Amino acid sequence: MRTREQSAPADGPLAGLRFAVKDNLDVAGLPTTAACPALSDRVPGHDAEAVRRLAAAGAVPVGKTNMDQFATGLVGTRSPYGACHSVASPDHISGGSSSGSAVAVASGLVPLALGTDTAGSGRVPAAFNGIVGVKPTRGLVSTRGLLPACRSLDCVTTFTRTVREGRAALRVLAGHDAADPWSRRAPATRPPGIAASMRVVGVPSAPPELDPPHAEAWHAAVERVHETADTVVEVDITPFLAAARLLYEGPWPAERFAAFGELLTPDGPHLDPTVRRIALAGRDVTGEQVFAGLDRLAALRRATEAVWDDVDALMLPVTPGHPTLAAVAADPVGCNARLGMYTNFVNLLDLAAVAVPAGERSDGLPFGVQLVAPAFADDPLLDLASRWCGESYKAPRIDAGRTELVVAGAHLSGLPLNGQLLAIGGRLHRRARTAPGYRLFRLPGTGVPRPGLVAAGDGPREGIAVEVWDVPHQGVGALLESVPSSLGLGRVTLADGTSATGFITAHGGLAGADDVSEHGGWRAYLAAKVIGAR
Amino acid sequence: MRTREQSAPADGPLAGLRFAVKDNLDVAGLPTTAACPALSDRVPGHDAEAVRRLAAAGAVPVGKTNMDQFATGLVGTRSPYGACHSVASPDHISGGSSSGSAVAVASGLVPLALGTDTAGSGRVPAAFNGIVGVKPTRGLVSTRGLLPACRSLDCVTTFTRTVREGRAALRVLAGHDAADPWSRRAPATRPPGIAASMRVVGVPSAPPELDPPHAEAWHAAVERVHETADTVVEVDITPFLAAARLLYEGPWPAERFAAFGELLTPDGPHLDPTVRRIALAGRDVTGEQVFAGLDRLAALRRATEAVWDDVDALMLPVTPGHPTLAAVAADPVGCNARLGMYTNFVNLLDLAAVAVPAGERSDGLPFGVQLVAPAFADDPLLDLASRWCGESYKAPRIDAGRTELVVAGAHLSGLPLNGQLLAIGGRLHRRARTAPGYRLFRLPGTGVPRPGLVAAGDGPREGIAVEVWDVPHQGVGALLESVPSSLGLGRVTLADGTSATGFITAHGGLAGADDVSEHGGWRAYLAAKVIGAR
Repeated sequence: MRTREQSAPADGPLAGLRFAVKDNLDVAGLPTTAACPALSDRVPGHDAEAVRRLAAAGAVPVGKTNMDQFATGLVGTRSPYGACHSVASPDHISGGSSSGSAVAVASGLVPLALGTDTAGSGRVPAAFNGIVGVKPTRGLVSTRGLLPACRSLDCVTTFTRTVREGRAALRVLAGHDAADPWSRRAPATRPPGIAASMRVVGVPSAPPELDPPHAEAWHAAVERVHETADTVVEVDITPFLAAARLLYEGPWPAERFAAFGELLTPDGPHLDPTVRRIALAGRDVTGEQVFAGLDRLAALRRATEAVWDDVDALMLPVTPGHPTLAAVAADPVGCNARLGMYTNFVNLLDLAAVAVPAGERSDGLPFGVQLVAPAFADDPLLDLASRWCGESYKAPRIDAGRTELVVAGAHLSGLPLNGQLLAIGGRLHRRARTAPGYRLFRLPGTGVPRPGLVAAGDGPREGIAVEVWDVPHQGVGALLESVPSSLGLGRVTLADGTSATGFITAHGGLAGADDVSEHGGWRAYLAAKVIGAR
Repeated sequence: MRTREQSAPADGPLAGLRFAVKDNLDVAGLPTTAACPALSDRVPGHDAEAVRRLAAAGAVPVGKTNMDQFATGLVGTRSPYGACHSVASPDHISGGSSSGSAVAVASGLVPLALGTDTAGSGRVPAAFNGIVGVKPTRGLVSTRGLLPACRSLDCVTTFTRTVREGRAALRVLAGHDAADPWSRRAPATRPPGIAASMRVVGVPSAPPELDPPHAEAWHAAVERVHETADTVVEVDITPFLAAARLLYEGPWPAERFAAFGELLTPDGPHLDPTVRRIALAGRDVTGEQVFAGLDRLAALRRATEAVWDDVDALMLPVTPGHPTLAAVAADPVGCNARLGMYTNFVNLLDLAAVAVPAGERSDGLPFGVQLVAPAFADDPLLDLASRWCGESYKAPRIDAGRTELVVAGAHLSGLPLNGQLLAIGGRLHRRARTAPGYRLFRLPGTGVPRPGLVAAGDGPREGIAVEVWDVPHQGVGALLESVPSSLGLGRVTLADGTSATGFITAHGGLAGADDVSEHGGWRAYLAAKVIGAR
């Protein structure tokens, strides 16, 4: 163990917390090998920014951890220093590439370890070792001092045993770094469309492709998510999976080659043959293919965007199975490629994610799921993860001087009148549904199409999709001035039995209106009618 | 002239307005050639989305215009249909690639024409023909139905004789298009850091590289910008110019090859030899080079970002000179490359721009400058352009129930306490300076560093840099609750002689404070001290 020039502050928020560091992140005085022994003589003089931040908060780095070489792999076996195995089974892989960091936490060596995640390296080993892996929004944590895999996608992540510990570390780690070109400034306020409290969780509409013991554990997780979420929505994840395939079938191996290709020649025992082959394949990618890939990614991102209008987060398997060391040795590329089918798309599509334990499979191996949400939704996503794990957390509250406002139509996030809510300082509090029996009508008239919500009593049993906004009291008056005569503000009862101020239909306001309740919500009606928002 | 299936609405906002369309944008029933005669048999069945929107607003497309082939060129001479010349001189180029569209407006054929702008194609021909060229934020106007040059950079633009007309067209053109992967949803409210009213304009600190008659006109423009702006700031534009060089010296020719490379073989008289050579060079770009270029661009974007903390917009030359047709013929590649030195970076760095007339050179040729601002600053940028052109415009006002609040320290855009202003519904109204004589002190204490503003009378003659925010009345109370005892809210006098509510130093609040007035503002002090914002 080395001594640090400056001792950690005894009063920092992480005072005395011991942490391990994946060996692609610099710790001053220790070599950064990225599991390539030939780099053992590369001893950085400074900590990576993520390490520096933890240490400045009082945490103490205690060592570097093994990994898939150059962070290229999801298996934990691609290292000249030897393969890792899951803490739960000597025969099954640890997952990677942050293999050693996950094992260090899961085996109780340290309460916190830093990893990285480009394709799933921070989530797969968390799931295979029964711990929490937080993969923050790209750019939220500086990657300065990281030996990169794909510069535009790499994220620094944490492994902990609880969400609470992961959140405490992230609070210290997150921060804009002007010296890292890929660092991003988090918005000062929560981005529009991201709810303070995540209540609507999406799950795949088609059964995911899973090995039998994995499938069983997954079905249990889907049962359980109904306890965590108010509403569970089935989502077609086809375009997400297509984006995942793009990472290795598309041009991104060239980004790996750009990052560390110079280290791949000459060949030798210091290089993992599979890693070398994959990255060298990046040499043959043409510039035309990269731009075509970026164009294809833009199309897939567009195809996935509408999902986030309807759900706060997706719950997905982390991997389709949990291979043995022997299976990986028999088919190192195929096994690895299949492992990433549910994780590879997350950074390409600019999403935040957290892998959380979800019990055990029937064979006793740990099983994990991931919760995935849009960029900069990290805070409410971690609340959701805490709820999933049964941990206490500080639920977001509506401040004094502000009130709940239920909207069901043109004021919904992204729709034409949503700007009125933002202009009065409104913030999306949560997605919700009305109590059973409400009906939704499309009101007649030109201009922005508007619906009317009616407590008819005989509407759909599952209620109507609404959003609950958190608005300043005095903003409500301004809003009322723009309400047409067929609408008004009144009480709306929600599925959870509570009621709040919201848009209602005025007496006589339904003349010439069409009942569109069957769509279950205004957005679904618009999508069906392809009216679209102007 | 063809007939349209559906006649234009007589009551649309652009009813009866005749417009021309650059020949890389689809007009139903007319071939889209992009100046490649071999494509004359490609007759689209639908209008490009931009054309459709104008037509839906009552405007009438009257024809297609000549252009540099495949929008690859800034000269207007790279077309098998013949070269264009400036309306002001038969010997000088029109500029391109939207050559015909600019000439059609400048010569009075139509009041509006659509162009496109990847590297400067919407601005260079505007400047060379004495008209207005609006290059909106990337993705604000759909590019569906465009034969692309660089998909990730292409913008649809307008040519008009006044800013007012360009703005009216943009109001109709702008809108999210779910079917265009590169379309972007404009934020519902103005992004933080973008002022409602642009008062601070940056100009290059080093004299730009300009041909003599151009330099003379430029100096006159710099004199004149003092009449348009409250404050003119000198800015080091080196990283902007480096980004400009990246467009052709970097990997982006491969994006052109990806977009239209298939049309370049076999060779023939239907292909412009220079365009063909440039785009075919894109075939040799490797994937590694593309990712290295994207990484370099990220670094340059980072290097330019801080500029937008201090200035609302940059005023720059559009081109370094105005070549003759003969000069371009003698050196088609070199001449063209130099033309783009001030325009090429704009889309790479995700900026909005507008080219505006700036009088004439001593030889009688029209001279233009461009005003450049961050993405989604289009509205205030066009206000600034209107002011530059001496046109009337609707100046942004502060609504009833809201008030001006002058901030000089930690509440400035992007600094640690700025979120407090955003949380109460604050919006940046304008950047400004205090009246002469104010002094700025760094107050003692731990936590977020904070300054104190004092009407000392003997401070810098140029005042202290501040921001005027537009906040709801009732938010001011909440703000006061978090103010330390050394500060308060009071009256602050601005350089224009008006006064407003703002942060002041309390009596006795300067104990232990350091005078940092010499820096001219809190942000400059922080930069000098490298304290940075947490």
